[in-house]
Amino acid sequence: MTATVYRPEAVFRGGRLVPGGELVVGADGRVLATAPAAATVVGLPGRALFPGLVNGHSHAFQRVLRGRTEFVAAGHQSDDFWSWREAMYAAATRLDPEGVYVASRQAFVEMALAGITTVGEFHYLHHQSDGAPYVDVHELSRQVVRAARDVGLRIALLRVGYARAGFQVAPNPRQARFLEPDVDTWLSRSRELAQVFADEPLVTVGLAPHSVRAVPRAWLAELARAVPDGVVHLHVAEQPAEVKACQAEHGRTPVELLDEVGLLRARTTLVHGIHLTAHDVELLARSGATVCACPTTEANLGDGVVPADLLLRAGVPISLGSDSQATIDLLGEARLLESHLRLLRQRRAVLDSGTGRPTGLSEQLVQLATVNGSHSLGLGPQALEPGQHADFFTVDVRHPSVAGVPLEAVVFAAGAGAVREVAVQGQLIVADGRHPLAEASGVEFGRLVGALTA
Amino acid sequence: MTATVYRPEAVFRGGRLVPGGELVVGADGRVLATAPAAATVVGLPGRALFPGLVNGHSHAFQRVLRGRTEFVAAGHQSDDFWSWREAMYAAATRLDPEGVYVASRQAFVEMALAGITTVGEFHYLHHQSDGAPYVDVHELSRQVVRAARDVGLRIALLRVGYARAGFQVAPNPRQARFLEPDVDTWLSRSRELAQVFADEPLVTVGLAPHSVRAVPRAWLAELARAVPDGVVHLHVAEQPAEVKACQAEHGRTPVELLDEVGLLRARTTLVHGIHLTAHDVELLARSGATVCACPTTEANLGDGVVPADLLLRAGVPISLGSDSQATIDLLGEARLLESHLRLLRQRRAVLDSGTGRPTGLSEQLVQLATVNGSHSLGLGPQALEPGQHADFFTVDVRHPSVAGVPLEAVVFAAGAGAVREVAVQGQLIVADGRHPLAEASGVEFGRLVGALTA
Repeated sequence: MTATVYRPEAVFRGGRLVPGGELVVGADGRVLATAPAAATVVGLPGRALFPGLVNGHSHAFQRVLRGRTEFVAAGHQSDDFWSWREAMYAAATRLDPEGVYVASRQAFVEMALAGITTVGEFHYLHHQSDGAPYVDVHELSRQVVRAARDVGLRIALLRVGYARAGFQVAPNPRQARFLEPDVDTWLSRSRELAQVFADEPLVTVGLAPHSVRAVPRAWLAELARAVPDGVVHLHVAEQPAEVKACQAEHGRTPVELLDEVGLLRARTTLVHGIHLTAHDVELLARSGATVCACPTTEANLGDGVVPADLLLRAGVPISLGSDSQATIDLLGEARLLESHLRLLRQRRAVLDSGTGRPTGLSEQLVQLATVNGSHSLGLGPQALEPGQHADFFTVDVRHPSVAGVPLEAVVFAAGAGAVREVAVQGQLIVADGRHPLAEASGVEFGRLVGALTA
Repeated sequence: MTATVYRPEAVFRGGRLVPGGELVVGADGRVLATAPAAATVVGLPGRALFPGLVNGHSHAFQRVLRGRTEFVAAGHQSDDFWSWREAMYAAATRLDPEGVYVASRQAFVEMALAGITTVGEFHYLHHQSDGAPYVDVHELSRQVVRAARDVGLRIALLRVGYARAGFQVAPNPRQARFLEPDVDTWLSRSRELAQVFADEPLVTVGLAPHSVRAVPRAWLAELARAVPDGVVHLHVAEQPAEVKACQAEHGRTPVELLDEVGLLRARTTLVHGIHLTAHDVELLARSGATVCACPTTEANLGDGVVPADLLLRAGVPISLGSDSQATIDLLGEARLLESHLRLLRQRRAVLDSGTGRPTGLSEQLVQLATVNGSHSLGLGPQALEPGQHADFFTVDVRHPSVAGVPLEAVVFAAGAGAVREVAVQGQLIVADGRHPLAEASGVEFGRLVGALTA
């Protein structure tokens, strides 16, 4: 157990890509300021090394849906968010614990191969299909964590509280697996869950009231009171219909409701945050809360575009998520957010950091995909500074997608196929673009999906 | 020289993916209906085989710009299409003939690796940097074709006519390499060029009046008269400023102008076609002309979204192009077009074919990326039917991006990394995901770009 010195062609540190340089990793998997005498040197010629990507919003099991929700149902002229949701429920209903493991592992392998080192798993599959708890109420959470452990990812498990189908909406039997009987049970189960994984350095537990649609005001208020300093994630303002229902029930927007109950605070993340009023943006700016954008999913479902430029300008941090797993490519999500905003604003470099450096845009995109996600999951900055976890990935600057691209612009060009080494806590989980579980995982996942749809 | 029988897991033929099946390729590189007795059998387990992708609009040399136009120029608060264009001109000015070859080859290698078998090269670099013709006036066209030949791609070289900076716009010295002295010289040089490549089965030549901005009305009218049945491509309605200038000069939209001069016809392709009026769409529908969408570039430059749903419904074929080479992934372009339209229309399956088959959307996207492009380049249908060229590519259905995805939905999920075999005229140019020139091309391209920006 000695230190390792990685010597790539460039290291992204201090918010920018610096040519040359090295990364020293101690035996404890943390970054060291300088190399001890006995360190092993690993040359990484032709590689640019970045802090690990943080996938701030994932529903791992939805990997089974990839491609399957793009078929237009017979007799339908069109398709929307709500018909997609029914397809998702149908899949969710049929997964047993081993299926949850196999599906999650496949999603996590693909994340690792794309340079993702941490996943924020918004986990809402809790019970058996009829709603009865498993003998171990944490059965499915354990399966998800087992998958992350086997793949080697750091995971923040965000345990979802789900109370109802919606305001004045009849119960939906396909949501039975998600439901918690009451707010106290949800909170105590979540506390227990944190205990279950207390000894695992790569696992943390947070709380995720699903949305203002699925959770009543009382749950939100009780959460704010009972867990004054917890990491909280929830879906907010993804669809206009959701905002409308909130206005009808509470006489305020979802963001205003969160503010009123005391949940709009620094360790809260609003996932999506698309349909926001100017007042919402003001409230967010004052609160220190984060907004997590999931551009692939938000386009796939026809949701709309997170106004990330307005939010960043107001001082609201933006993180990124792969959400529905339609694709898994976090640098791609960063580019797509910028790209969607260019279409809306009809100009370029919309998310430029405004630092005045010509590389302001590329640095901003890396910030969204790394440090902001880590902050949003309560993991503190992980930017390859001394003392921080050595979570990193490398890009092969000779890959066809990147060849001839200036180092500082690699983030605009690198596809997931250009990722070569990926390390979590100093341990390599992907080497030369390969993960040891990839093949077996793919085969078992293929079998699972075949059985699900047989 | 015998026939070869490829046996993949599925073949896309007759507009849909059919499980099982085989592709028989004769010694002449054309598809055969049945296998002769002496045929060689090549098993392709785990592969889905598709007609080759057709990149309908490419400026190959712009590969040198990848990543370089994303830096915000010092002293600028923002960036737009027109500032991007200045950066592109700066690069275009500095390429010598060997540089044009090296840059084009790199773009074409990346195209081959992404399953592209045909490129429509909208070629406007003609002369030396000061505008003086090369000793051989076709020098740079030869370099582009040499690159395509070395890589193995089929190429439709669309020779650009460029007359001026614009309506009431002062000449721009950076356009000197593009300019032709008069319409007759342009047309006669283009005829000559077709003769130069008359013996090359993979090369065709078409005509590309750059845009209604860069070409006066008289050139368009003369082209329509002198070449009554030629393949014609031009940029149309990419930016609002361009439509405005056309209105100012001609009192009509660019589409109306093309109609008036007789250029709106079946073998004409309008590249971009974003800012269209209802009347434009009507005229297009009557004409049989194609619109070529380039979604990555159109988002990158903040142009807008091609209203492909309205156009397809009106009967206008849509093809796809990688244009500025910000990325090269034609299936990705197909998905992105659908994705942009979902954001605009706030619903899903916008480009569904309306055939009533649940797979209507995936079949439509393949159609755009293959047959429509081939039609637009005047190459006739290439859909793997008997007698047609055996241009094809395969997707590894076990690739992490595709594992567990239904065969019929592979097009929604496959990244360029999932492409395994690529063949043009029956010859494999990519095998097991590798192109023999990839490494050398990347190294020389890196050197070229280094020298350009030194």
